[in-house]
Amino acid sequence: MTDLAAEVLAGRPAAGARLIRWLEDGDARGRALLPRIHAAAGRAHVVGVTGPPGAGKSTLVDLLVAEERSRGRRVGVLAVDPTSPFTGGAILGDRLRMSRHALDAGVFIRSMGSRGAHGGLSRSTYDACLVLDAMGHEVIFVETVGVGQEEMDVVGLAHTTVILAVPGLGDEVQALKAGLLEAGEVIVINKADRDGFEQTRRHLELLLHLREGARPEGHWRTPLLVATASRGEGAAAIVDALDAHRAHLEAGGGFAAAATRRDERQFLSLARAALTDALLRGRGGALLAQVRDRSLDPYTAATRLAALLGGADPGVT
Amino acid sequence: MTDLAAEVLAGRPAAGARLIRWLEDGDARGRALLPRIHAAAGRAHVVGVTGPPGAGKSTLVDLLVAEERSRGRRVGVLAVDPTSPFTGGAILGDRLRMSRHALDAGVFIRSMGSRGAHGGLSRSTYDACLVLDAMGHEVIFVETVGVGQEEMDVVGLAHTTVILAVPGLGDEVQALKAGLLEAGEVIVINKADRDGFEQTRRHLELLLHLREGARPEGHWRTPLLVATASRGEGAAAIVDALDAHRAHLEAGGGFAAAATRRDERQFLSLARAALTDALLRGRGGALLAQVRDRSLDPYTAATRLAALLGGADPGVT
Repeated sequence: MTDLAAEVLAGRPAAGARLIRWLEDGDARGRALLPRIHAAAGRAHVVGVTGPPGAGKSTLVDLLVAEERSRGRRVGVLAVDPTSPFTGGAILGDRLRMSRHALDAGVFIRSMGSRGAHGGLSRSTYDACLVLDAMGHEVIFVETVGVGQEEMDVVGLAHTTVILAVPGLGDEVQALKAGLLEAGEVIVINKADRDGFEQTRRHLELLLHLREGARPEGHWRTPLLVATASRGEGAAAIVDALDAHRAHLEAGGGFAAAATRRDERQFLSLARAALTDALLRGRGGALLAQVRDRSLDPYTAATRLAALLGGADPGVT
Repeated sequence: MTDLAAEVLAGRPAAGARLIRWLEDGDARGRALLPRIHAAAGRAHVVGVTGPPGAGKSTLVDLLVAEERSRGRRVGVLAVDPTSPFTGGAILGDRLRMSRHALDAGVFIRSMGSRGAHGGLSRSTYDACLVLDAMGHEVIFVETVGVGQEEMDVVGLAHTTVILAVPGLGDEVQALKAGLLEAGEVIVINKADRDGFEQTRRHLELLLHLREGARPEGHWRTPLLVATASRGEGAAAIVDALDAHRAHLEAGGGFAAAATRRDERQFLSLARAALTDALLRGRGGALLAQVRDRSLDPYTAATRLAALLGGADPGVT
């Protein structure tokens, strides 16, 4: 076999796909290549796209990919949304919507399995982001459903997060949107041709206005944009906003800082795995056995472990 | 102050609410009481209720609470669904639907914040389950949205998981339902008066039939039930199915085994927190500083840490 890292750095899709698979499977060969991959990464603009199920995230990402391609950029897509046809498509065979990019060598699409990913979803998604970045993709879209803590961690990987709202999803989803808004640098109302559009727009404008009013001068002003992705409308203004946010981050040092933040998280996640492994080989293994045979409750067991480590109580720190 | 643990064991709602708040906040006083609480728990039937946003989970839980009450049982509800009016209601003030149980001393309702929970959502939800169990609640409903890895971990806490489907939520949600089905012991089609009911019923029957065919003799047969919670229809058959599943678990030893599995997970989660704390005080802190100043990539740093611990590579184990 030739040098897989070199092939990844040359942008070969088959090499990238193999490396991501190795990383997801916890294959030692993949892990060994990551320092080289990491050294070559850091140029891609990582864009999270999130919103409730049914908001049309995949259709919008499809459209944004086409717009980025028309600007001559290489684009990667990571679909980590369990409700996405890219991801869910593995069950139902519905991958049709993305097919128009299937033969475009400038687009690399990958579904991230949310179950059974080695080391958790956010760790494997970050590894995959690094691979796509090192392959030379200039923009990487990470599509995730905006519900759930680990999905929000994935959003935390992005330089820029696009939040999708949609008219008429009902009161239950309004609460979700209000929480999500906090995480967004670009807000898009999709399906603008639907009933209830004006009401949703006014609602979001008010929420944004309240938020922006509390922010200092020089802070990024979150734009509220409108799209009807199913009819191909709205992509140019969204990509303009993404470019503007990238420029804003670069001017303030935030672009590189985001990569450092991701590296810290990645190290802590890997360090925890190493420590857990060391724990179970050591005295922690005996404590776990006592929890298993119900001779010790988990809280007392954890307190004893913390005492062995000479540390503070884990429930208190 | 009197003995809070004794008050919790006597079933006093104010004491239970205070203890849960301490546990969520990481207050050391709460943690110190958990061994006593744990010793008194283990009798409650923990029932997860999950499904996509808009499936009517809260309305159904409300109905199931009424049905359990009519059978004379004390009932606890933990709403960990960020799209639920119980949880989201903190934003929008919409707690109306649950209000008919607000004055019933036999019902204890608590919203779990999905953001900022000390030690993660599944850990704090498990702690809260223990408290409700020790208070003497015989059934505990845990309402969560069926999207996202951590929410699925919460589902893993339950003895019995009820999956809600709903007609006409669209293709994107079908994929979700197919994935969710694997986790369910009772499947309910809610909003049975909606268009598309027959199609959804046939689709789910087929999926269940395919799954059940592959299972051994003596395995639990997942029932497919129908409800229109907004009209108060369907609760009795669902509670009958819950009771049947509890009896099935008790007959096979699965009821106690579920508690042991939760204890193991809780110990490992607390152990990881203690280890991370020990790490950052020790040599891992120096490695983290190198990741922060970008003189070391996170993968090489994790490998060096694993070598210090004398363990296997954390990406490989």
